[in-house]
Amino acid sequence: MGKTFAEKALGRAAGYDVTAGEIVTVEPDFCMSHDNAAPIARTFKKIGVKNVWKPERIVFILDHAVPAPSDDHAINHKEIREFSAEQGIPNFFDVTSRGGVCHQVMCEEGFALPGLIMIGSDSHTCTYGAYGAFSTGIGRSEMAAAWATGKIWFKVPESLKVTVKGSFRPGVAAKDLILTLIGDIKADGADYMSVEFHGPAIEAMSIAERMTLCNMGIEMGAKNAVCPPDAKVLEAIRGKARTDRWEALWADDDAVYAKELVYDLGDLVPCVAKPHTVDNYGAIDDVKGTPIHQAFLGSCTNARIEDLRAAAAILRGKQVAVRTIVIPASWKVYRQCLAEGLIETFLDAGCVITNPGCGPCMGNHEGILAPGEACISTANRNFKGRMGNKESFIYLASPLTVAASALKGEIADPREVL
Amino acid sequence: MGKTFAEKALGRAAGYDVTAGEIVTVEPDFCMSHDNAAPIARTFKKIGVKNVWKPERIVFILDHAVPAPSDDHAINHKEIREFSAEQGIPNFFDVTSRGGVCHQVMCEEGFALPGLIMIGSDSHTCTYGAYGAFSTGIGRSEMAAAWATGKIWFKVPESLKVTVKGSFRPGVAAKDLILTLIGDIKADGADYMSVEFHGPAIEAMSIAERMTLCNMGIEMGAKNAVCPPDAKVLEAIRGKARTDRWEALWADDDAVYAKELVYDLGDLVPCVAKPHTVDNYGAIDDVKGTPIHQAFLGSCTNARIEDLRAAAAILRGKQVAVRTIVIPASWKVYRQCLAEGLIETFLDAGCVITNPGCGPCMGNHEGILAPGEACISTANRNFKGRMGNKESFIYLASPLTVAASALKGEIADPREVL
Repeated sequence: MGKTFAEKALGRAAGYDVTAGEIVTVEPDFCMSHDNAAPIARTFKKIGVKNVWKPERIVFILDHAVPAPSDDHAINHKEIREFSAEQGIPNFFDVTSRGGVCHQVMCEEGFALPGLIMIGSDSHTCTYGAYGAFSTGIGRSEMAAAWATGKIWFKVPESLKVTVKGSFRPGVAAKDLILTLIGDIKADGADYMSVEFHGPAIEAMSIAERMTLCNMGIEMGAKNAVCPPDAKVLEAIRGKARTDRWEALWADDDAVYAKELVYDLGDLVPCVAKPHTVDNYGAIDDVKGTPIHQAFLGSCTNARIEDLRAAAAILRGKQVAVRTIVIPASWKVYRQCLAEGLIETFLDAGCVITNPGCGPCMGNHEGILAPGEACISTANRNFKGRMGNKESFIYLASPLTVAASALKGEIADPREVL
Repeated sequence: MGKTFAEKALGRAAGYDVTAGEIVTVEPDFCMSHDNAAPIARTFKKIGVKNVWKPERIVFILDHAVPAPSDDHAINHKEIREFSAEQGIPNFFDVTSRGGVCHQVMCEEGFALPGLIMIGSDSHTCTYGAYGAFSTGIGRSEMAAAWATGKIWFKVPESLKVTVKGSFRPGVAAKDLILTLIGDIKADGADYMSVEFHGPAIEAMSIAERMTLCNMGIEMGAKNAVCPPDAKVLEAIRGKARTDRWEALWADDDAVYAKELVYDLGDLVPCVAKPHTVDNYGAIDDVKGTPIHQAFLGSCTNARIEDLRAAAAILRGKQVAVRTIVIPASWKVYRQCLAEGLIETFLDAGCVITNPGCGPCMGNHEGILAPGEACISTANRNFKGRMGNKESFIYLASPLTVAASALKGEIADPREVL
């Protein structure tokens, strides 16, 4: 009987054949933490182990609140610098022009690789599935234990196969696919499952688009989400793999799935996730005209060069009607924007560009909303208070829809401005 | 008997000859407020007047905390937007790519003009003296009253004449002159005085350098600080004056001064203001080697294109040794940096660039220090807790000294890296 991707990846790491439902203990290939490395380090110290198991498997990337917007954040950063020096962590991305949002940096810098077991103390660690990794977010205490022991246990997840065919109509993007899927199966629709994306439409997608899909796996409860490690992935990692432990693994054709779904991209329309849940699907026709006060083009979900090009194409030569905050996912993306003239396009349109990082996504800084205000955002969560204020409203959408809405000052259909 | 600049400017505004020590009531030409327009608007509403006296004389520029790093800041911004719309304030610089640090924007946008009476609810409103304005910071309640009545009273200040000759040696900048002057006469050395800068060295200075001098007038207690409205000023305001009420006024040769000082630029060395007072002068030889954890190139004092060019010349092709935050004074300056390739120079050197605004200068966000950390900064204040943390240390210096120090990770002499 064939194996799913999760069975193959976890079986390879365990050293024996495994099947969904089994408990396995494996050694993680990379352990990523962002600003929360500070509380994790505090927990680690309580465990009583002096040194982390393998410093070279730990990656720290400051992104949640950079440069530090408060005493508490500054203290966290300082603790991470000290812990990193003390433990000899070789891969520490501090507040410099080599950083960015942790998940973007993990992918750009060659940590995200096919077949690896990757854990991160952030929910959206599932993003690396775009590179064919088994990657998943874990808790802080779990991470401290992984640093100490070099081990982590998983129940091998059952799998959800999502087959995607057809092609996007103009104005529709990968974000619309994932928001539609989450709207269909709801926020608990893939609880503890491995979501496998299959089909010709996935193969046709860029790595950036696949990252958008996998990034939001957690928003339907998935343990991980993954796309095939095809030629595009191999090309993307060429010459920059941080380890040779990787292997291009994929599900067998006769693998056993707990559930299967099929989508045709041609059926999709631009959409949003309405406040206050990610699965609160709204087709653009049902929400357009809703007033907004802020637009946010950023986050680990949708702030890659492809996303910013798409938004810039809509904003070029026009003026935003509401405050619009653009935060490229990393300094590499920012520099690519520079090279392509996109920074100027955004400034000409009236947008404000801040330093790469998470920005206002989880309410730390750089764009907190006032009570009663609504934001349309390319990020991944719209829970009440997510962007810092419990009386504000967040609509999630694609870069196209966010850009079109920024121009109108209300939720707008990107197909009308393309 | 001749008149000082302050006597001439206030006499012109009062409509009769005035002498130092007299009380005059005048109509301000422009009233500037930044994010604190919100509490001022609340006070204004308590006065019981429905409309501000002249909306076109009020300027709002959001800069202290943009984009909003907290609920409170977001609420302030929202109140300012509402008040601005309600009162029909035509000059409101919101969170867009047309703003920046308020004082920089006031100068760039043609509000700062010779002979005008300019008040601002910010201490560093004295900056506009570089354009020959009588400009001064006032309190919030005073500003609310000015909005309501269109009047403000002043005691005509006595004047301190500072004559400057000679020229800077390499590695020495306008910031070194003003830090030296403040170190000499101390933080109360010009209490309630009008500081007039005279002499061939002032005439040789750029407007940017004069802004650095005038900006720090308040740091020696001055009511205002001013440079002559010479041909450079007239050239700088050509075609962009926001009113024709201006007039190039200057002190008579036989004006009466309470105090006179003479400086020769050739005598100056690079210096810093040591923690925790602006008048705690330290010559570079006495402080070099002091470890730092952060460098900040920004603020209304020293983040103009001339400052950033000077810093970039030192950083070009090298790597900073500590986190270095670059915040151009305005989006215009940022765009000029873009055009000149300075953004890339800073990024190549490892610096982080944030959106123009005040940044960490007064501890709101974008670079708060941790306890025990030291920052070398181009800003204007180093009081305990100024940058947000009461157990941190701030050294003020020129862009040259800050850049040189960023490269070494300790306070460094810019003359050694030029």
